[in-house]
Amino acid sequence: MSKREMILDALQELLYEGTAGTASVQDIATKAGIAKGGLYYYFKSKEEVLDALVERQYSNVIETCRTKLAAVDAPALEKIKLLLYFYRSTEVDRAIDVALHEPQNAAIHQKSMVFILRQLSPIVGEILQQGVEEKIFTCDQPEQIAEILLSPIIFLLDPGLFTWTDQEVQLKLKALAQMLEASLQAPINSFAFLYENWTQQKLK
Amino acid sequence: MSKREMILDALQELLYEGTAGTASVQDIATKAGIAKGGLYYYFKSKEEVLDALVERQYSNVIETCRTKLAAVDAPALEKIKLLLYFYRSTEVDRAIDVALHEPQNAAIHQKSMVFILRQLSPIVGEILQQGVEEKIFTCDQPEQIAEILLSPIIFLLDPGLFTWTDQEVQLKLKALAQMLEASLQAPINSFAFLYENWTQQKLK
Repeated sequence: MSKREMILDALQELLYEGTAGTASVQDIATKAGIAKGGLYYYFKSKEEVLDALVERQYSNVIETCRTKLAAVDAPALEKIKLLLYFYRSTEVDRAIDVALHEPQNAAIHQKSMVFILRQLSPIVGEILQQGVEEKIFTCDQPEQIAEILLSPIIFLLDPGLFTWTDQEVQLKLKALAQMLEASLQAPINSFAFLYENWTQQKLK
Repeated sequence: MSKREMILDALQELLYEGTAGTASVQDIATKAGIAKGGLYYYFKSKEEVLDALVERQYSNVIETCRTKLAAVDAPALEKIKLLLYFYRSTEVDRAIDVALHEPQNAAIHQKSMVFILRQLSPIVGEILQQGVEEKIFTCDQPEQIAEILLSPIIFLLDPGLFTWTDQEVQLKLKALAQMLEASLQAPINSFAFLYENWTQQKLK
């Protein structure tokens, strides 16, 4: 294993232990079993280690979604549905997810939300563009619309930030579906999959 | 000054000093010049002190917007424009704003984003409802639409989370304006004020 990976593993362990938020560069280096100077060879700051760890965690999830999606030949609307399904069913390390919602790990949590938005936006943007070519969507700015539609999903519906009831989540998803149908000039109820059977979707 | 306010002032000072993220309950009590037990009389945890401080900081800004808006008799579209103007021109303590974007204060930053969304949504929702009554908007779920439209503004356009160029921000606001016009069935370009003269707006 490379030293870089050892450093990331060390921070990940501190995350499990709940001390990642307050850990110093020295603490991370000690945990990794290397000298502080060794850590600085790979990372300029604790910030950079956090960045790299979040990237490693989530790039696997995103890459899985991208690969599965690339193997599918389907219309745009079906692809959006599939992307949502792949994303929800790809295993995210449960302990990491819980740790991310601890207040002391808020910085890492924020980075993960930013990373997910940045990584998913081009994928969703491409699907929207495909929908334009299929003449099912009308959309001048697929990339920006992708970012805007992902913002409420990643931020407003984050269970660590807000504590909505299932019914409240469903109402928000219904409003989002209707906004998307109207702004993309998509068929009525074509985005109903976002909110239909929400409770069952959640249990998957 | 009440002890409660003294405790909030203490945490605010730690925020200025950049040590709020790692400060213990004892550190906050010491800074406030009171016993740890005294702090626990008002707050169950450091978390609760953070909550209260963010609430104090931002409730003033929101309250100012609400009061100014209540004094105005204007159509819904004009009120949304005014709300945006009031919000941008209400003085937020610059040092607090900078401190909120330090990684060690990420938990407080997240709480501020959640608080702003929760406080602004009903205000925007009421304006959307007024627009429905004026027959300028069509909207079944004004409250949810308000939350969805505020999500990209609060999350995606947060300069501490993302580093977009002015041109990128303008493109995102343009896409948001077009989504709102389409989904509210509002007149074309009625939300153009969101992105027009963006650079000048920013300088205000």
